[in-house]
Amino acid sequence: MIAKRYCKTIAAACGLLCLGTFATGGDRPSDACPALRERTLKPVALVKVERSEGAFQGWRASRSGTTGSAFGRPLVRGDEFIFDFGEHLVGYVKLELGDIDRPVDAPVRLDLSFAEVPSEIGEGREGAASLGTISPSWIQDETVTIDEVPSVFEVSRRFAFRYMRLRVRACSNGGRFSLRGVSARAVSSADLSAFRPIPSASPEDDAIDRVAAATLRDSMQTCLEDGPKRDRRLWLGDLRLQALANYATFRNYEVVRRSLFLLAECASSDGAPATAVFERPTPRSSNGRRILDYTALFPATVLEYMRASGDTEAARRLWPTAKAACETVLSAVDETGLVRADNGFWNFIDWQDGFDRQASEQGAIVFGLDRAYELARALGREKEVAHLPGIAAKMRTRAVEALWDGSRGVWKSGRDGNVSWMSQAYMSICGAGTPEMRRGALERVTDMPDAVRPRTPYAYHYFVEGLWCAGMKSEALALVREYWGGMVKKGADTFWECYDPSDDMASPYRSILLNSYCHAWSCTPSYWLRRAREEGVEKRTNVR
Amino acid sequence: MIAKRYCKTIAAACGLLCLGTFATGGDRPSDACPALRERTLKPVALVKVERSEGAFQGWRASRSGTTGSAFGRPLVRGDEFIFDFGEHLVGYVKLELGDIDRPVDAPVRLDLSFAEVPSEIGEGREGAASLGTISPSWIQDETVTIDEVPSVFEVSRRFAFRYMRLRVRACSNGGRFSLRGVSARAVSSADLSAFRPIPSASPEDDAIDRVAAATLRDSMQTCLEDGPKRDRRLWLGDLRLQALANYATFRNYEVVRRSLFLLAECASSDGAPATAVFERPTPRSSNGRRILDYTALFPATVLEYMRASGDTEAARRLWPTAKAACETVLSAVDETGLVRADNGFWNFIDWQDGFDRQASEQGAIVFGLDRAYELARALGREKEVAHLPGIAAKMRTRAVEALWDGSRGVWKSGRDGNVSWMSQAYMSICGAGTPEMRRGALERVTDMPDAVRPRTPYAYHYFVEGLWCAGMKSEALALVREYWGGMVKKGADTFWECYDPSDDMASPYRSILLNSYCHAWSCTPSYWLRRAREEGVEKRTNVR
Repeated sequence: MIAKRYCKTIAAACGLLCLGTFATGGDRPSDACPALRERTLKPVALVKVERSEGAFQGWRASRSGTTGSAFGRPLVRGDEFIFDFGEHLVGYVKLELGDIDRPVDAPVRLDLSFAEVPSEIGEGREGAASLGTISPSWIQDETVTIDEVPSVFEVSRRFAFRYMRLRVRACSNGGRFSLRGVSARAVSSADLSAFRPIPSASPEDDAIDRVAAATLRDSMQTCLEDGPKRDRRLWLGDLRLQALANYATFRNYEVVRRSLFLLAECASSDGAPATAVFERPTPRSSNGRRILDYTALFPATVLEYMRASGDTEAARRLWPTAKAACETVLSAVDETGLVRADNGFWNFIDWQDGFDRQASEQGAIVFGLDRAYELARALGREKEVAHLPGIAAKMRTRAVEALWDGSRGVWKSGRDGNVSWMSQAYMSICGAGTPEMRRGALERVTDMPDAVRPRTPYAYHYFVEGLWCAGMKSEALALVREYWGGMVKKGADTFWECYDPSDDMASPYRSILLNSYCHAWSCTPSYWLRRAREEGVEKRTNVR
Repeated sequence: MIAKRYCKTIAAACGLLCLGTFATGGDRPSDACPALRERTLKPVALVKVERSEGAFQGWRASRSGTTGSAFGRPLVRGDEFIFDFGEHLVGYVKLELGDIDRPVDAPVRLDLSFAEVPSEIGEGREGAASLGTISPSWIQDETVTIDEVPSVFEVSRRFAFRYMRLRVRACSNGGRFSLRGVSARAVSSADLSAFRPIPSASPEDDAIDRVAAATLRDSMQTCLEDGPKRDRRLWLGDLRLQALANYATFRNYEVVRRSLFLLAECASSDGAPATAVFERPTPRSSNGRRILDYTALFPATVLEYMRASGDTEAARRLWPTAKAACETVLSAVDETGLVRADNGFWNFIDWQDGFDRQASEQGAIVFGLDRAYELARALGREKEVAHLPGIAAKMRTRAVEALWDGSRGVWKSGRDGNVSWMSQAYMSICGAGTPEMRRGALERVTDMPDAVRPRTPYAYHYFVEGLWCAGMKSEALALVREYWGGMVKKGADTFWECYDPSDDMASPYRSILLNSYCHAWSCTPSYWLRRAREEGVEKRTNVR
């Protein structure tokens, strides 16, 4: 069923003014809002969450009873159930309350806690969260007071969860109440019937693919959200990866189109796309610092959208924004063709500490300029950006001069010659140096204990892309299987924002309660597994 | 403005099946649901709540700033404001949230606490409430999490309050938020334009009258509620008093008519009216023990409604229920004409401890039988209840034989000869003994230190009625001024459920946090002050 009411609200919101160049023209392509599809899900079991040494983050949810055992019996203050919905979902919870022997003569007050992973139930919530670096308001707790019994009560906020803990905080001593049912209305703009499993995939590959698709499904709403639990913004960098996975699975072009236009409509005064957009209450730029590498990816994302969907008209309208993105990122490049160390942008690349991003940014920009020129040619606008191929070539040459460490056979970065996996990946992606240099650097870096490794699935995606570009497709596929497969082995229903195989407690926010466990940028295995199949990459190899 | 949407919901709910005799006929006069009228109120000041020895319950709210000083400034975790709306209201709160310099990048979580009187803010809420005898879920606390900023957020639950404390529990460290405005949508079925102040009343009388009318206004919703903060049930005993005050002020006959029919439609199998009805989600009897004295009042309430409104048709339809009420209460009377000590009913009369209710019930029943016969005659149905005058006469005679304490000159009650103010009041109301006995007993009891005094405004109303029936109208008026005026002097915006002039901490529930401070049964001064004016009672006297 399509959630018409919700979409109507969004559509109304979309009609309001936004920042940027599109706003002034009265032209708002992002008004075309994808419909949300609904599924009704019921919990599959009651579980208990306990300490378990071998489990992910030290917490395990194990079955403690049937959901039916929670229903129909009188509940009193302190009663508690943890419902397991059996899969990750994004949506709205409905509680059906009934009375037992006489009317309930006082409101029923319930504490609800939603969790994507067991640790979110197991760890003390507010206490631990106050140590985090972002607001504990992201922790999905809700106290609801229900005045009328019997009734069906839908909690008005949207949550992202697999587990829901329900605790009775207060209720009448007189007329007693019971739960009669619990269900969830899951929402997504993904058409699940469009999804086709990879034919005759191994059970392991199939599991990775399904978890990736679920990650995309749940972050795919009226725009492409970052993390449906925490940070519902549309981010340019995540958008590209969601779009690639989407073309391989659900093929919802409308949501990509709208997301691209949201970024373009919320462009800053230089015309370059927003780094991130708040969709609601009305679309607008998050107004944070611009991410250099994300901005560089915009032309590629438009090009890939046009090729996947055939929607040349949208690409034509997005072209000025793509062109402006190129000009903006070039402002970070010095006259010699090298990205400046202090370029004033937010150089993101990864949530990893202590590594230098200059080489990665150099690669991202060159990649972006190449794709922009390719887009221009496809649109017959190459005269407008005739200077780009020359700049890209100069930047590639300059990379070899300034960033190649011939003695170690790897790409270095920054004043101190920092060596990281990501520098090698981006130099491969942009095609700097010779194929041998690129491939050799990728092979060598994984054997260097001091080389800074990637930390997030976002960075791992680009490392895989770097391997792919260097022709190391088997190694790339093996890494997908090892890294994302590692999350599956640890019980992931959707792929996480942050996954360090050696440290379950890793968090960009100093609290695992604040991590997002269904995160847009982690959904690309569906893309890689299918691309590997198409390109005949099947041989298993190991990458370390 | 009329709240059409709310009424529509109620009307739909009213259409569903209810218990009792009316349900089977498919005939539902209570479907005629009075419309709610809305007023928008804004807070008038910020206040602080502090200990103050002379203040009611030891807490005083004093002005600490303009409401404007709360608005437009960045708020952080722990910020707190107490908004004073300047008057008691029942309704829905709207919070307008804005951003400051960049979009707010995390939900805003606020703790809201609503209070009718300052002590509800001053006293620790949950801790103290857990000592109470009824559910702490009645305490008006709400934690709301607002995902979208800027936005106007209406809290979905209805509250009864003058003060609202707002505390920032969690918010972003990044984009900051502010309050831009706070308002309330007050609801009532009272038409305030119908209210006429008592002409040239003293400031004291005028204040009592306005507080009484506000009490009625805020407990007058789609039915006549008991306490809009706590216990929204329609209770038969409260209904009679609200109806009397309503005929003297707002004259909304529709809400009385609907309330009478709700009680009749939810009759038990013997056809007698429900003692209390839950209006929502669908009307039904509260299914508790039947209150003997309330049931006895039903015929009087129908008679008074018919006389005030002229709606003979409704009285005709309610007649079978009134007749059944008589039969039911007579089952508590023994063959000699005396109310049995152990009659199986809930003998209410007052929330006072340690007094015997036999005499009061005797009086209430006789009063009810008299009014029932009067109603029957007005409807031409006196043949159906031809036995009632004889029974009433017999009960009056029996009261003199069994309950008159000739040596002390007062009415006694129960096996131990308990003496209370209420026994004297009800014997006066039902006209037992001679006028001299009744008047003398009322005069004497107030000078007897051991006589049990009334505790609630409900009981005080009937003591005033007893004085009135004994011709002691000046004394009655003086008592209205002293007792209800005492609440006004202590700062009441609406009259309280429980008021013991000598004990501010009195609570039927062992926690003042659970008391209702706008309570239906306390609203009759508007009736008495006007009746005194009509009957020329103006001389001030003192009653002790």
